[in-house]
Amino acid sequence: MNFELEPVSSPGLALTGLAEKHAGEFVATAQEHDRDQSFPYPHWDAMRRSGLLSASVPARLGGLGVSAVHDLVVAVSRLARGDASIAIGAAMHLTAFWFFSRLPSGPAAERDADLAAMVALLLRRCARGHVVACVAISEPGTSLGWPNTTARADGDGYRIDGRKGFCTGSPAGTLFLSTVRIVGADGSQSLGFAVVPRETAGLTVLENWDAMGMRASGSNDVVFDGCRVPRRLVMTSGPLGVVSVEMMPMTMVGTLVLVGAALGIAERAQELVAPTVAGQVDDARGRAWADRPSVQRLVAENEVDLTVARSALGRVATIVDERFSEGGVVPTRPQLHELMKEIQCVNVAVKRAAIAVVDRALTVSGGRGYLSANPLSRLYRDVRAGPFMQPLSMLDAFEYIGKIKLGIDAELDPAPSWNPRAAATTAVQQ
Amino acid sequence: MNFELEPVSSPGLALTGLAEKHAGEFVATAQEHDRDQSFPYPHWDAMRRSGLLSASVPARLGGLGVSAVHDLVVAVSRLARGDASIAIGAAMHLTAFWFFSRLPSGPAAERDADLAAMVALLLRRCARGHVVACVAISEPGTSLGWPNTTARADGDGYRIDGRKGFCTGSPAGTLFLSTVRIVGADGSQSLGFAVVPRETAGLTVLENWDAMGMRASGSNDVVFDGCRVPRRLVMTSGPLGVVSVEMMPMTMVGTLVLVGAALGIAERAQELVAPTVAGQVDDARGRAWADRPSVQRLVAENEVDLTVARSALGRVATIVDERFSEGGVVPTRPQLHELMKEIQCVNVAVKRAAIAVVDRALTVSGGRGYLSANPLSRLYRDVRAGPFMQPLSMLDAFEYIGKIKLGIDAELDPAPSWNPRAAATTAVQQ
Amino acid sequence: MNFELEPVSSPGLALTGLAEKHAGEFVATAQEHDRDQSFPYPHWDAMRRSGLLSASVPARLGGLGVSAVHDLVVAVSRLARGDASIAIGAAMHLTAFWFFSRLPSGPAAERDADLAAMVALLLRRCARGHVVACVAISEPGTSLGWPNTTARADGDGYRIDGRKGFCTGSPAGTLFLSTVRIVGADGSQSLGFAVVPRETAGLTVLENWDAMGMRASGSNDVVFDGCRVPRRLVMTSGPLGVVSVEMMPMTMVGTLVLVGAALGIAERAQELVAPTVAGQVDDARGRAWADRPSVQRLVAENEVDLTVARSALGRVATIVDERFSEGGVVPTRPQLHELMKEIQCVNVAVKRAAIAVVDRALTVSGGRGYLSANPLSRLYRDVRAGPFMQPLSMLDAFEYIGKIKLGIDAELDPAPSWNPRAAATTAVQQ
Amino acid sequence: MNFELEPVSSPGLALTGLAEKHAGEFVATAQEHDRDQSFPYPHWDAMRRSGLLSASVPARLGGLGVSAVHDLVVAVSRLARGDASIAIGAAMHLTAFWFFSRLPSGPAAERDADLAAMVALLLRRCARGHVVACVAISEPGTSLGWPNTTARADGDGYRIDGRKGFCTGSPAGTLFLSTVRIVGADGSQSLGFAVVPRETAGLTVLENWDAMGMRASGSNDVVFDGCRVPRRLVMTSGPLGVVSVEMMPMTMVGTLVLVGAALGIAERAQELVAPTVAGQVDDARGRAWADRPSVQRLVAENEVDLTVARSALGRVATIVDERFSEGGVVPTRPQLHELMKEIQCVNVAVKRAAIAVVDRALTVSGGRGYLSANPLSRLYRDVRAGPFMQPLSMLDAFEYIGKIKLGIDAELDPAPSWNPRAAATTAVQQ
Repeated sequence: MNFELEPVSSPGLALTGLAEKHAGEFVATAQEHDRDQSFPYPHWDAMRRSGLLSASVPARLGGLGVSAVHDLVVAVSRLARGDASIAIGAAMHLTAFWFFSRLPSGPAAERDADLAAMVALLLRRCARGHVVACVAISEPGTSLGWPNTTARADGDGYRIDGRKGFCTGSPAGTLFLSTVRIVGADGSQSLGFAVVPRETAGLTVLENWDAMGMRASGSNDVVFDGCRVPRRLVMTSGPLGVVSVEMMPMTMVGTLVLVGAALGIAERAQELVAPTVAGQVDDARGRAWADRPSVQRLVAENEVDLTVARSALGRVATIVDERFSEGGVVPTRPQLHELMKEIQCVNVAVKRAAIAVVDRALTVSGGRGYLSANPLSRLYRDVRAGPFMQPLSMLDAFEYIGKIKLGIDAELDPAPSWNPRAAATTAVQQ
Repeated sequence: MNFELEPVSSPGLALTGLAEKHAGEFVATAQEHDRDQSFPYPHWDAMRRSGLLSASVPARLGGLGVSAVHDLVVAVSRLARGDASIAIGAAMHLTAFWFFSRLPSGPAAERDADLAAMVALLLRRCARGHVVACVAISEPGTSLGWPNTTARADGDGYRIDGRKGFCTGSPAGTLFLSTVRIVGADGSQSLGFAVVPRETAGLTVLENWDAMGMRASGSNDVVFDGCRVPRRLVMTSGPLGVVSVEMMPMTMVGTLVLVGAALGIAERAQELVAPTVAGQVDDARGRAWADRPSVQRLVAENEVDLTVARSALGRVATIVDERFSEGGVVPTRPQLHELMKEIQCVNVAVKRAAIAVVDRALTVSGGRGYLSANPLSRLYRDVRAGPFMQPLSMLDAFEYIGKIKLGIDAELDPAPSWNPRAAATTAVQQ
Repeated sequence: MNFELEPVSSPGLALTGLAEKHAGEFVATAQEHDRDQSFPYPHWDAMRRSGLLSASVPARLGGLGVSAVHDLVVAVSRLARGDASIAIGAAMHLTAFWFFSRLPSGPAAERDADLAAMVALLLRRCARGHVVACVAISEPGTSLGWPNTTARADGDGYRIDGRKGFCTGSPAGTLFLSTVRIVGADGSQSLGFAVVPRETAGLTVLENWDAMGMRASGSNDVVFDGCRVPRRLVMTSGPLGVVSVEMMPMTMVGTLVLVGAALGIAERAQELVAPTVAGQVDDARGRAWADRPSVQRLVAENEVDLTVARSALGRVATIVDERFSEGGVVPTRPQLHELMKEIQCVNVAVKRAAIAVVDRALTVSGGRGYLSANPLSRLYRDVRAGPFMQPLSMLDAFEYIGKIKLGIDAELDPAPSWNPRAAATTAVQQ
Repeated sequence: MNFELEPVSSPGLALTGLAEKHAGEFVATAQEHDRDQSFPYPHWDAMRRSGLLSASVPARLGGLGVSAVHDLVVAVSRLARGDASIAIGAAMHLTAFWFFSRLPSGPAAERDADLAAMVALLLRRCARGHVVACVAISEPGTSLGWPNTTARADGDGYRIDGRKGFCTGSPAGTLFLSTVRIVGADGSQSLGFAVVPRETAGLTVLENWDAMGMRASGSNDVVFDGCRVPRRLVMTSGPLGVVSVEMMPMTMVGTLVLVGAALGIAERAQELVAPTVAGQVDDARGRAWADRPSVQRLVAENEVDLTVARSALGRVATIVDERFSEGGVVPTRPQLHELMKEIQCVNVAVKRAAIAVVDRALTVSGGRGYLSANPLSRLYRDVRAGPFMQPLSMLDAFEYIGKIKLGIDAELDPAPSWNPRAAATTAVQQ
């Protein structure tokens, strides 16, 4: 009897199978890529070929047709058991295409035939394994809703300038999905979203990712230096600092699949120190390590945390699927914030639990886990990335949850609450 | 948008409605019964009359027909928002009748026509509101599977002697369900289960419940002094110290409904300090209390814990319902322990979360919550009862979870692991 | 070998001896006073007679001459092992007289001969056992530095009107030390401090204390209804909302002695569940309860917390004594805030630790501790009072510590930071 | 006003000054040595030359004459602010020479003139900067008191065979202090302690240290392959599995100085995110980062933990100094265990606190701290080494503390309690 999360849809079952197969391969090279900080190109190629990366493309367009967020989460958790650095990149790509798959039936596409056509093309290309989407939203010195990267109206298109950080999966990326500050011809500013193909002149993926963990994730900086893109590749979201009702589902799903990666790391750690079959825990030393009360206690605390993490993640993903199912009533902005509050509760709870589980596994390992050769030492560093991931980092999440619960006006972007200058800022970094 | 647990079955919906109605009435008298340590007879009468106490009796016998453990849990959580002292008594009664409702279709009843007849009678009487079952299993100086209360073969029946503690709901109880040590004519001993009607000569409900919390629960001692009961009211479970495969589902459900009470207490505490509608939180002082960062932080931490608690409880209850659904494959003993391990993880997680939530609510209350007149001061004492409740207390749970996870043989009853004399004991308290 | 805090001065040693003797008597009646919510007058009389209550009066005036804050803290921790309800009252009285003892050598007394005379009289009367000081600073609906109780200039004295809450020890109190809003003849307002003798017409001690814990503390409301006091009994501190440099030492010592009470409660709880002599832990059941890994774990966690609590409290009290020793350099306002930050760190740490210790002791007790007859059930409720006590409550402390550490201007009174209207308020409650 | 630990003796003051100077140099290269996993030879040379490494040698022999354990702890904490990898090596060396410095006045030296002479020589050589002691006690597959490394009587000396791990500072080591299993000519076995000079034939320092953190510590394996040493370099301690009364002080001091390193790491982390001077916290982004409630909260929690850690460490070190001062009464074995229990409480408390502080600092850093270039990412990995360090690891400490507190017989070496075969083992690894 196993209490891990299971897919709830039949395409999800197929995707989970793929994810488990890939994870089985990733696990063999994870230590090596971690040590060398090398990007696992072959694994990304394999995910493109296997169809995993087209999982969220509708079946009629050639994808697996996974629409259940729950099942994307499950798949990402399985990938992360193999190599979390790859799982978080895949998670962002899957989120992007889950979002694109919904666009054609949404109001934006109805208004805008160009957009509809572009999205349809993207989905088909993804289904054929030709696309890897890379999310480029972080920027030093500002927050989610106040990008300094600009998209200036320029002839019949836009010119993109700026620099993004933490672009996970960028070495494999063929499309860079970037938040931008749209600057109109009249100087007006708004928040937008650009899709920049890798071959665009002026786009450079730096090879500068160097971090404590998630070392094989290729989370490099990406520089846009006068990148020209056609009008249809830039979508307007609305005022700066406000995540629009249309974009919010993407941020929600983006949060949840990354939480899935945290869960997968924790599951792997527990698997390493508490194999479930009796007797396996006797080690070469001939000791019944598992008989020690301290070991039993820590393994038990880990089980408690894993139960909690799986339950919380599974439940909120199911709720999200109910709210966003096609034909459902579109939630209002306040309802979206209520839902996002719940998602952020899960975000906080699961990442905390995952960090605690890996930490206890290290203690149980008795010193061996601290050595570089031991996978626990990688898991310990990888799992700590979770609390930084947006939206929302652990620094932002409590303020947001508390305000929403108490009926105080709050935006997903924390800036307005603590940066009095954000709203007034007009200067734009060139 | 509300993320509380909702019933999943249509009888469960009806039961939840009843529970909410009752809770609305309980809440008005909860402080008073707590202060006086008085037993709320009128509320128990109301629950008998409304049909709440026959919720787990099949519809064809006149009950509500709630078979989903999930929905019993939801109902108990709602009751606990009103008065947890009543909720835990109702929880035990509902568990007993959930168990009785399953007996007629089980192997024991097939073997034993007398048992089947007795159970059918009990169910019908319960459906008419004539029965309140009171669980009498705790005894000082021993553990769950090693009762010192004896049932000695005596003519065509048994003679019961002993003393039980923590008999929640006893003032209203009409039937006392008691674990016993069956002593055969040949001196052989086994674990058993007796149903002792209140009117049995020699049965005394002491009025000695006096505790820090759950003061209106009437958890008195019950004394059996030569109580004679017919043979069909005593069931043999098996060896001492071992909860039998037949009894284990009852212990599981018993655990979960009590966890439901803990959740309800926590939900009530958060409701008291963080009303969800904006503006309500301004107090008479004209201060925006809710604007304080400390308040927001604590309310947010509470939301995280409530999300976790609801998710964990909802998920495991759903899994239990799947495993025990009629027509399903009967789990093996190891599978039951796997499932019980998961249930105990939830037991630990939710009770910890509930205690933390009430504690933070007290802090948020700014001193007023410490006063006897404030419901938070009652919730704080009530919620602390959870970790003592069997099976399993917080002292036992980690050892059990750790051992099961590590494939080490463990019984639900912790005694064998820490009491070397338990197995050898033959002396029986008279 | 015992690691409890020990007095560092020879008068402190005498005081600690007295405190231990009293505690030995308190412990016998603590459960009874808790149950009845009755005030332990005989114990207060005994403390007056024994000289404990004149401990901080200089020896030349007839007191014990304890000037070391460290030793007051130790004594209060010992008293709290007997009955914390009495300890917190004694703590406040001892703080007041520690403060009065320092006044004659301070600048205020040099400026004001009347004040010096009054203080000298008070100290002598206290040395003879005629005084019990009761601190009256809390008021509903406002914060420490913004009292709504007024002292209006009236002839050659003041007229005091208002209502104070949480006046611990009030049934025994002969002098009520109250924060007031001084209203000058010209309507000007400032923060002040009044000493109101019990026999003053218009002063009423209500008998309305009714709380979850600290039930024998007599923390009633006190009403001042047109109480006239001579000018020398009202001291001006300075602007509203600002604890003056002169008053800050008293708030520091007041914090620390109450932390001492929390420590004493925790020490008592551990003593109850882990007697230090081997073999005592075997209970009547013939079980080696202490052999259980869960029990060992919880007892060990308690030892860790007690070690931490004692160390933190002992160290900061020693530092306070160094800073405030006679002949020392008077700290500046920023230095006082640095020191208060450190004291608040200890306040938070020890109270958290104490609450955790009692909670674990309850778990170890295996259910018996939940019963009213068991002292643990009282300790559990008493220890929870700590986080509410000012200055600073747990709600205020983190904001204050964080701000001071980050070099952000902060007052001890949290009001200015969260109550935009506090500074502007001129309306005064009559 | 600063609340860091300060030296209590005048030689300690000199040592602390040296430590601060060295730390100022270490900090400049710490990131580089961490990245390259290179051993900082120049810093070790500098510590030999400056006199830091002869700090615990008596002044009359040419050392600094620091006998206060408290001050060794302070110095190690200062070193760790610069580079913890160096600090832990220096800590072990200082412990060894603190121990050697006490030997000549102890009973062993009185019995054994050879030992006395050897120790005197060692101390003088250390004073001249010629010695770096490297502690070699860990072995895979066994515990502290059951080494598999043997010292077999061989002519007029011993032959040492075995392999040790986690030999911190080994690249600089000139003397290897190793626990051994002494095998007499008659096959009898006992626990012993060998001093093996680096130049001994058969001794190899492997260059195989590769771990998640403490990467510049050179904690390599050391192999003894038929190393012959004279009789006076092997001391007999007593039965296997029992740390002798003579050796226990060394294990205590060894524990405490390593706890000092944990404290230093935490202090450095807080320093990085909460510079104490107002205004420094404004970053280039023009944001008042420090105004964020989340930042204030985390910085405040860190202050609480630092206060606790410093207090606990300072107090227990002072107690140790009192117990072990020359002329004092030599503690009995039970008293040593009582004291060791207290030390282990501090060990647990400070390491937990230090880990929590660094973790919060990372969160406050907002993502930048996760990058390899940021010192916080090193501190996060370094601080996690603490819980593995013997005696006692976090896995052992709670069992030990609980047992000692409950009066249950326990040895410092946890083996007997969980390894039924330890006592029976006679087979010895060759």
